[in-house]
Amino acid sequence: MLNVALLGAGRIGQVHAKSIFANRDCKLVAVSDVVADAAHTLASRYGAEARSVDAILGDSAIDAVLIATSTDTHSDLIERATAAGKWVLCEKPVDLSLERALQCQVRVANTGKRVMIGFNRRFDPNFAALKHALDAGEIGKPELLSITSFDPAPPPVSYLKGSGGLFRDMMIHDFDIACWMMGGAPTKVVAAGSSLVDPEIGAAGDVDTAVVTLTWKDGRIAVIKNSRRAGYGYDQRIELLGSQGLLSARNVLENTVEKITSEGTLTAKPVYFFLERYMRAYEAEWAAFVQAVKDDSAMPVTLEDGIAALACAEAAARSARTGEIATILPDMLSAR
Amino acid sequence: MLNVALLGAGRIGQVHAKSIFANRDCKLVAVSDVVADAAHTLASRYGAEARSVDAILGDSAIDAVLIATSTDTHSDLIERATAAGKWVLCEKPVDLSLERALQCQVRVANTGKRVMIGFNRRFDPNFAALKHALDAGEIGKPELLSITSFDPAPPPVSYLKGSGGLFRDMMIHDFDIACWMMGGAPTKVVAAGSSLVDPEIGAAGDVDTAVVTLTWKDGRIAVIKNSRRAGYGYDQRIELLGSQGLLSARNVLENTVEKITSEGTLTAKPVYFFLERYMRAYEAEWAAFVQAVKDDSAMPVTLEDGIAALACAEAAARSARTGEIATILPDMLSAR
Amino acid sequence: MLNVALLGAGRIGQVHAKSIFANRDCKLVAVSDVVADAAHTLASRYGAEARSVDAILGDSAIDAVLIATSTDTHSDLIERATAAGKWVLCEKPVDLSLERALQCQVRVANTGKRVMIGFNRRFDPNFAALKHALDAGEIGKPELLSITSFDPAPPPVSYLKGSGGLFRDMMIHDFDIACWMMGGAPTKVVAAGSSLVDPEIGAAGDVDTAVVTLTWKDGRIAVIKNSRRAGYGYDQRIELLGSQGLLSARNVLENTVEKITSEGTLTAKPVYFFLERYMRAYEAEWAAFVQAVKDDSAMPVTLEDGIAALACAEAAARSARTGEIATILPDMLSAR
Amino acid sequence: MLNVALLGAGRIGQVHAKSIFANRDCKLVAVSDVVADAAHTLASRYGAEARSVDAILGDSAIDAVLIATSTDTHSDLIERATAAGKWVLCEKPVDLSLERALQCQVRVANTGKRVMIGFNRRFDPNFAALKHALDAGEIGKPELLSITSFDPAPPPVSYLKGSGGLFRDMMIHDFDIACWMMGGAPTKVVAAGSSLVDPEIGAAGDVDTAVVTLTWKDGRIAVIKNSRRAGYGYDQRIELLGSQGLLSARNVLENTVEKITSEGTLTAKPVYFFLERYMRAYEAEWAAFVQAVKDDSAMPVTLEDGIAALACAEAAARSARTGEIATILPDMLSAR
Repeated sequence: MLNVALLGAGRIGQVHAKSIFANRDCKLVAVSDVVADAAHTLASRYGAEARSVDAILGDSAIDAVLIATSTDTHSDLIERATAAGKWVLCEKPVDLSLERALQCQVRVANTGKRVMIGFNRRFDPNFAALKHALDAGEIGKPELLSITSFDPAPPPVSYLKGSGGLFRDMMIHDFDIACWMMGGAPTKVVAAGSSLVDPEIGAAGDVDTAVVTLTWKDGRIAVIKNSRRAGYGYDQRIELLGSQGLLSARNVLENTVEKITSEGTLTAKPVYFFLERYMRAYEAEWAAFVQAVKDDSAMPVTLEDGIAALACAEAAARSARTGEIATILPDMLSAR
Repeated sequence: MLNVALLGAGRIGQVHAKSIFANRDCKLVAVSDVVADAAHTLASRYGAEARSVDAILGDSAIDAVLIATSTDTHSDLIERATAAGKWVLCEKPVDLSLERALQCQVRVANTGKRVMIGFNRRFDPNFAALKHALDAGEIGKPELLSITSFDPAPPPVSYLKGSGGLFRDMMIHDFDIACWMMGGAPTKVVAAGSSLVDPEIGAAGDVDTAVVTLTWKDGRIAVIKNSRRAGYGYDQRIELLGSQGLLSARNVLENTVEKITSEGTLTAKPVYFFLERYMRAYEAEWAAFVQAVKDDSAMPVTLEDGIAALACAEAAARSARTGEIATILPDMLSAR
Repeated sequence: MLNVALLGAGRIGQVHAKSIFANRDCKLVAVSDVVADAAHTLASRYGAEARSVDAILGDSAIDAVLIATSTDTHSDLIERATAAGKWVLCEKPVDLSLERALQCQVRVANTGKRVMIGFNRRFDPNFAALKHALDAGEIGKPELLSITSFDPAPPPVSYLKGSGGLFRDMMIHDFDIACWMMGGAPTKVVAAGSSLVDPEIGAAGDVDTAVVTLTWKDGRIAVIKNSRRAGYGYDQRIELLGSQGLLSARNVLENTVEKITSEGTLTAKPVYFFLERYMRAYEAEWAAFVQAVKDDSAMPVTLEDGIAALACAEAAARSARTGEIATILPDMLSAR
Repeated sequence: MLNVALLGAGRIGQVHAKSIFANRDCKLVAVSDVVADAAHTLASRYGAEARSVDAILGDSAIDAVLIATSTDTHSDLIERATAAGKWVLCEKPVDLSLERALQCQVRVANTGKRVMIGFNRRFDPNFAALKHALDAGEIGKPELLSITSFDPAPPPVSYLKGSGGLFRDMMIHDFDIACWMMGGAPTKVVAAGSSLVDPEIGAAGDVDTAVVTLTWKDGRIAVIKNSRRAGYGYDQRIELLGSQGLLSARNVLENTVEKITSEGTLTAKPVYFFLERYMRAYEAEWAAFVQAVKDDSAMPVTLEDGIAALACAEAAARSARTGEIATILPDMLSAR
C-alpha cells in the first residue's frame, strides 16, 4: 500500500485525486493547496487530511507525492520531495525555464529517487496501441510523423499570460509524443505561429495557431499542428508514415450513432475536451507510476523526457520569435 | 441513501455489485447466494454481509433488492420481495413461462411496489442516443427495424439446457429493443432457426442461428438476427429506417487505430463481449433504478416490458417449432 | 467483333446501348422498339439502324441480341432469338410467370444457344469483391446473409401494376444475390410485407416495405429487407456472417468529404439511384457476356439462375398473400 | 466543335488524348511528339494525324492545343501557340525557372489568348466538393490547412534528375491546392526535406520526404507533407480547419468491402496511383477548358496560378537548401 500526498487541489489536482482514490494499491493521505479551502474540500471528499507542504514532506509515512501545483513551483517541489525521499509524479511541464529544469535534473540525480513527468497522452489506449504497433514493426521504420492537437476553445488570456505560451503549455504534450514516437529529441525545430482566434492572445505576445516542424539527425521529420479553437471540440490525432505503411489514431467520438438523411450521413463529433478524452489515460498513468514504485523500476516517463519536450518548446518559441530555424544541441538535453 | 441487497453472487451478480458499490446514493448491505462461499466472497469485497434470502427480505432496513439469481427463481423472488415492501430490479427474463410471468404481474400489482426488469441495453449510450434521435423525430416515423446481435462463442451446452433456449435467453434482449423502438409489442412473429455452429446445440433441441421477423398491427416490421458465434467478438447493432432517414448504432471498437499497408486498411474489431460493451450500461441502468425509487416514479423498464419481450420469445419459439407464423394476442401481454 | 442488336430503347435499353457502344469488341448494329421514334433516336446516337424485331432476328449477320423490352415479352423473345441462332442477354426477370419461364428454359435448351440473365449487381465491383473473398474462404462457411436494398422513392403506381409487384420486380435482384452467395436456391421462404410508404400501393395489391427470410436445406439463412422509399437515396448493402468472420459491402458515397462542426461529423450520402451506383456494373456485365460468347463458355448468369430467383419471388409473394411459410420444390427450378 | 491538337504523346499525353476523344464538343485533329512513332501510334488510335509542331501551329483550323511535352519546352510552346492564336491548356509546371515563367506571362498577355495550367486535382470531385463547402462558408474562415500527398513509389532516379526535384515536380500540385484554398500566394515558406526512401535520390541532390509550411500575410498557415513512397498506394488528402469547423477530403478506396475477423476490421486501401484516382479529374479539367473557350471566359486555372505555385516551389527549394525561411515578394508573382 502506497501512502500518497497530493500537492495542488485545482482542476488537474482533482482529476488526479480521483485516480489515486480509485487505485487499490494506494491511500490518499494528504492534500495541500495555497488555497486552504480547496485543500480541505478535496481532502474531505476522499477521506484525506489537508496539510501544508512542509508537513507532507516531513512525514516519513508518506511514500509518494503527486505535484499538480502551478508550473513555476514544479522544479522546487520536485527537488524538495526527492530530497525528502519521496517518489514523485509531477505534472507537465517540468518548468518554464529549460535551464532551471536542467538544474533540477542534477539535483534529483543526487537523491537517488525517481521522478515521473505527467505526459498523460502516452497512456491513452489509442495512442498506446499505435505505439505498440510501431514497436512491433508493423509499418517498418517511422519516417514522417504528423500530430494534430486542437483545443475546443482558448482559455482566458489571464491564464495564458502565466502559462508560458502555446509552445510550453499546450504543444509540450505533442513534443513529448513526437520524441516518444521517434525515439529521442530532434535537432532542428522551426515554428510558424499566428494569432487568428483572438487578437488579445496576440497582444499578450502569444500565438493561438501554430505549426512546428521537427527534424531528427537522421532526417526523419515530424510536424505538429496546434489550434486553440477547433469549435467542434477536442481534436487529438496522430499519424505516422513508416517505410511499410501508415498508422493513425483517430479521435474518440461521443457515440456510434449514424443518421443518413437527404442532408448526408451524420455521425457524432469528437468528445469535447481532455477529461472526456483522457480520464482513462490519467488512471492508467497513475497505475503505471504506482507499478514502477512497487517494482523499483525505471519510470515510464522520465525527467529526461520532460526536459526533451521542454527543449523542443523553447526552440519552437525561439524560432517563432526570430523567424529562423532553431537547433537543439546535446547540452540542452542534459546538464551532465 | 438506499440500502440494497443483492440476491445472486454469480457472474452477473458480480457485475451488479460493482455498479451498486460505485453509486454514491446506495449502500450494499447484504448478499445472498445458494452457494454460501460465493455470497461471502462477494459481500466481503464490498463491505457487505452474506445473508439468507429470508433474512434479507425480513430486514425492514433494506429498501431495495437486485435479483440476479437463476431464471427459474425470478417470479418467486419478485413476488416475495415486493410483498416484503422492497423495490426490485430483476434480471431478464421475468420467467421462462409467460403464464407464470403474467401471474407474477398480478401479484406484484397488489403490493403497490414497482419492479424494474434488467434490460441493460436500453442504457447503452449508443442505443440510448439512437432512441433519443428517433423520439426527437429526426427520421420521421419508424418503419423497418433491423437488429444484429451475435455472441462471440456459444456457452456450454449444459448452460443452454437450463436457459430456455436462444429465443428466451439471448434474443429476449432484442425483443425488448424492438418493442422499445417500435412502441409496444408486435402481433405477428415468424422465426427461422438452425443449428449451424454446434450440432450438440441442435441435439439439445435448441438453435444457434436465427432470424425472427416481427410485424406490428399497423404493418411496421422488425427483423432480428442472432448467432451464437461471430468469431470476431460481440456484434451489437441496431438499424432503423424511418420515413425520412436511417438511424443506426454501430459497434464499439477496441480502439481508434488504423493501419494502412499493401494488405488494406486495418482497424480494430468490436470489443469482445458484454462486459466490455455494456459495463457503462449496467451502471446507468442501476442509476436509473435508484433515481426512480428516489423520485417514486415509474420504472424506466417495467414488468410489462418484460412480459412483452417474453411473449415475443414464446411466439418465436413456437414459430420455429411449428414452421408457422405465430400471433401475439392481447391476453398474452396482460393478465388483467 | 460481335454484331449486336438491342431490343428495347427505353430507360434500361439506353443504359445498355452505352455499354455496347463503349465495348471495343462489339458493334451496335440495330435497335428496335415498339415506339418507332425511340428506336430511331437511340440508334442514330450510336450509328446504328432502327429495325423491326423480325428484321433483326432474320439477319444472320447479327450475332447477339440484348433484350431490354417489357417483362411480358421476355420469354417469347428469348425463345425466338435463340431459335434464330443468336446469343442472348435478357434483362431480369425472365418472366412474371414461373411456369412460363420453365417452358422457356426447355425451348432454349433445344436451340443449343446460351442465354444470360441481366442480374447486373453481380458485376458491381464491391459485391464482386465480397463474393471473391467468400470464395477464397476468407470467412469460412457462409451461415447468415443479410441484404439491404432500398430505393430512394417509389415508382408511379401505374408502373407498379404491370411490374409483377415488389417481389418479382425489385426483390428479384436480392433473391439472385442470395442464391449466388449461398450457392443455389433455398427451400423455405417466408415474407412479411406492408404498405407503409404509399396507401395507393397497398390499394393496388402490392407492398412497399418487406422482409423475406430464406432458409436452405442445410439450415443456412438469408434475410432480405426492401423498401421503396429510403429518402436519402439508394441503399444497397450485403452482409454475410461466416463461420470465421463477417464480410460486408457498404454503400458507395457521393464523395469522400467530411465536415466536423458542433453539429457532428457530416459525410456524403449514398449515390442517389441505380445509374449512379451500377453504371460500372452494367459495363462489366456486358463485357462478361461478350467474353463468354467469344470463349463459347458458360454464361456467368444463366437462365437457371433467373428461374431460381423467380421461384423465390413467387414463393415470397405466395407467403405474403397466405401468411404461411412457402416451400420451393425441385420441380420449380427445372422443368426437365 | 473545337479542333484540338495534342503536343506530347507520352504517359500524360495519352491520358489527355482519352479525355479529348471522349468530349463530344471536341475533335482531336493532330498529335505531335519528338518520338515520331509515339505520335503515330496515339494519333491513329483516335483517328487523328501525326504532325510536326510547326504544322500544327501553322494550321488555322486548329483552335486549341494541349501541351503535354517535357517541362523544359512548356514556356516556348505556350508562347508560340498563343502567338499563333491558339487557346492553350499546358501541363504543370509552367517552367522549371520562375524567371522564365514570368517572361512567358508577359508575352502571352500581348497575344490576347488565354492559357490554362493543368492542375488536375482542382477537378477531383472530392477536392472540388471540399472547396465548394469552404466557399459556401460552411466552416467559416479558413485558418490552418494540411495537405497530405504521398506517391506509392519513387520514380527512377533518371527521371528525377530532369524533373526539377520534389518541390517543382511533385509538391507543385500541393502548392496550387494551398493557393486555391487560401486565396492567393503565401508570403513565407519554410521547408524540411530529407532523403529517407532511397539514398540515390539524396545523392542526386533531391529529397524524397518533405514538409513545407506556408504562411500568408494575415497569419493563416498551411502545411504540406510529401513522401515518394507510401507503400500502400497513393495518399491524397486535404484537411482544413476553419473558424467554425473542419473540412477534410479522404482517400478514394478500391472498394467498399469490409471484413471483420479476429485479426480486426479490414477495408480496402486507397486506389493505387494517379490514373486510378484522377482519371475523372482529367476529364473534368478538359471539359472546363473547353467550356471556358466556348464561353470566351476566364480560365478556371490561370497562368498566374501556375506562377504562384512555381514561386512556392522555388521558395521551398531555396529554404531546403539554405536552412532558412524563404519569402515570396510581389514581384515574384507578376512581372508587370
